[in-house]
Amino acid sequence: MKQDIRHMVMFNLKHDRHSPQAIKFLTDGKNTLTQIPGVKQFEVLTQISAKNDYHFGFSMMFENQAAYEAYNQHPLHVAFVNERWKAEVTRFLEMDFQQAL
Amino acid sequence: MKQDIRHMVMFNLKHDRHSPQAIKFLTDGKNTLTQIPGVKQFEVLTQISAKNDYHFGFSMMFENQAAYEAYNQHPLHVAFVNERWKAEVTRFLEMDFQQAL
Repeated sequence: MKQDIRHMVMFNLKHDRHSPQAIKFLTDGKNTLTQIPGVKQFEVLTQISAKNDYHFGFSMMFENQAAYEAYNQHPLHVAFVNERWKAEVTRFLEMDFQQAL
Repeated sequence: MKQDIRHMVMFNLKHDRHSPQAIKFLTDGKNTLTQIPGVKQFEVLTQISAKNDYHFGFSMMFENQAAYEAYNQHPLHVAFVNERWKAEVTRFLEMDFQQAL
């Protein structure tokens, strides 16, 4: 439990928030990234607080740092970043969390 | 399920990251805020990504917007913000997430 890493990213798309293109990006992201071994509890999120400017989020759990690194280097992840993320995401913020107490 | 809101905040403290004062703030936050009705799955987090500058996080779930608003207005929350948060937190970012797909 203590080693678990929750990797999250908040982001905005060049597409309108509720457009079919946005839904397609979110769906494709989920369908692609959940194929990668070690990805657990994948969530597609909308960010609804007015206290920041991000619209969307992905969240996933890794059992340890090795699983996280394998994900980062996996060809499906690399291809998604190069072919979709860089083309459609306008800004983002990455976060990694572990239990502190 | 669809209504559930995950409220998160990332923050830094004026205390050193691993100091007893930091641990006390995190512990007091957990012990105080988890007393408030409607607060579920409270987590005390450390933020370990080098891609942002925050050190800590709190995460909690609310079943709906009404539970979230009741938390915001609860005297224990208001007192914690006024007496501890404003005195010990140097910067923070709030986020609220719902399931998108």
